[in-house]
Amino acid sequence: MSTDEWSPQGPVAELSDTECWALLDGTSLGRLGVSVDSQPEIFPVDYHADGSTVLFRTASGTKLHELLKNDSVVFEVDSRVGDAAWSVTVKGRAIVLTTPDDIDAADRRPLPEWHPTKPFVYVTIVPSTISGRRLNRHVTAEIAR
Amino acid sequence: MSTDEWSPQGPVAELSDTECWALLDGTSLGRLGVSVDSQPEIFPVDYHADGSTVLFRTASGTKLHELLKNDSVVFEVDSRVGDAAWSVTVKGRAIVLTTPDDIDAADRRPLPEWHPTKPFVYVTIVPSTISGRRLNRHVTAEIAR
Repeated sequence: MSTDEWSPQGPVAELSDTECWALLDGTSLGRLGVSVDSQPEIFPVDYHADGSTVLFRTASGTKLHELLKNDSVVFEVDSRVGDAAWSVTVKGRAIVLTTPDDIDAADRRPLPEWHPTKPFVYVTIVPSTISGRRLNRHVTAEIAR
Repeated sequence: MSTDEWSPQGPVAELSDTECWALLDGTSLGRLGVSVDSQPEIFPVDYHADGSTVLFRTASGTKLHELLKNDSVVFEVDSRVGDAAWSVTVKGRAIVLTTPDDIDAADRRPLPEWHPTKPFVYVTIVPSTISGRRLNRHVTAEIAR
């Protein structure tokens, strides 16, 4: 934790890259944010993080698949348990895997199973930045608003 | 449920507006998506939904506050319990509340408590569309990939 500060909700700790990847490794549902013509969109996706990339699937021809034409994406995972909360955000480029070697490697990663009714593509996010924050809520009794 | 179809993960049901607002009413952590210069951003926010608007707070001067200069936003809430999953998405305009009457009304809504170390603003999302999907995973045993 490199920096501690107070947020309006309580103390905030910035997480190291290693801590961020460990948190991503511990869960499998994240949200992909994309933007087309200044309209943001968010899609929940099942993913696998391996410490350097994020991998997910999307069916061919879906809206999400189309929107990846703007490959500048954000990926966010968060959790809140009791008074503790964390959030990890990855920014980077989304790349649709096309070569047999890349697809074979993706097939071996432990993504959730997928119902084989439609063809899908693998998408990987190559991060430019990763950041995370952990928040501990210290709500006082005398809060006015 | 107006339309049933199959997704690659199983059957999908589109949810009515009423069902979407009921799901939003049942939880309090969502994700706000904004876009500036084609760069999408996602922020987890505690919110309150009252059946027609979404309300949340942000500290004055934060990055999120700045980004709302592009007021076209998306707000997404999802849940996954066992084989069932749902996601609700609201698109609309984000408006920072400024009048005493609006702020008084917001003060009365049951948002989570807030640590009073920094001034904050209330932000409401006035929806242009709301949509939701419920997914039931029917993963077969013979999945190949």
